Amino acid sequence: MKFNLLVPFLLLIICSVAFGQEKRNTATVEKGLIKVSIMYPYAEGKTFNMEYYETRHMPMVAGFLGTNLVKYTIEKGLSSGIPNQPLPFMAIGTFYVKSLSDYQAAIAPNRDAIRADFPNYTNISPVILVSEVVK
Amino acid sequence: MKFNLLVPFLLLIICSVAFGQEKRNTATVEKGLIKVSIMYPYAEGKTFNMEYYETRHMPMVAGFLGTNLVKYTIEKGLSSGIPNQPLPFMAIGTFYVKSLSDYQAAIAPNRDAIRADFPNYTNISPVILVSEVVK
Repeated sequence: MKFNLLVPFLLLIICSVAFGQEKRNTATVEKGLIKVSIMYPYAEGKTFNMEYYETRHMPMVAGFLGTNLVKYTIEKGLSSGIPNQPLPFMAIGTFYVKSLSDYQAAIAPNRDAIRADFPNYTNISPVILVSEVVK
Repeated sequence: MKFNLLVPFLLLIICSVAFGQEKRNTATVEKGLIKVSIMYPYAEGKTFNMEYYETRHMPMVAGFLGTNLVKYTIEKGLSSGIPNQPLPFMAIGTFYVKSLSDYQAAIAPNRDAIRADFPNYTNISPVILVSEVVK
């Protein structure tokens, strides 16, 4: 009698764990997503406050993007991969979104607020690349 | 009697599914990894064969990197994110590795083979950024 209850209960646990795993895997598929990469070129005299960027600026912009945003990443430039060449970028922030037009529509009304925050962490004018994840 | 066998069996399934999920999540943690990004700047007259790059060049280089390679990605440049500015990069290939020195040690003896393959897909001299995943 006790086992009659236990078996369906265990089956329920198996199903929920397996289903949870499937959902998580779907969320990490990046192929086909649009990347908007904000790239900060290195040059003499240029500064970049990574702590402010990570804790204030990027969360603010991410907050404008809603469910269109799949994830965002931040990387810190260390060096050029080619000996004796200067560091190409001090930092890159990247938004992975489902729709470029939705991204543009979400950013447009907030552009002034985003730009006004630039001097709080950098004196660099960024290069922005829109690309598609191939693999 | 039948249930006495079934319950431990179901528990075993739960454990293996849950353990499999944990392993998978660990594999997707990128923070702290080193990225080596090979970036192909766009300019008039420059060409890039994405099909060759994806099916031949990148798998060849990835094959040199062994277990140091966590994953690699390929993206195709679509446009600048700033109106009226040229496309910054036609393509970017990125290796996510645990150790930069292991990456360099693995690439060094294969540099000539890698360079000899460039003309098969592009006439662009790439920029290479070494960076650290912050988030």
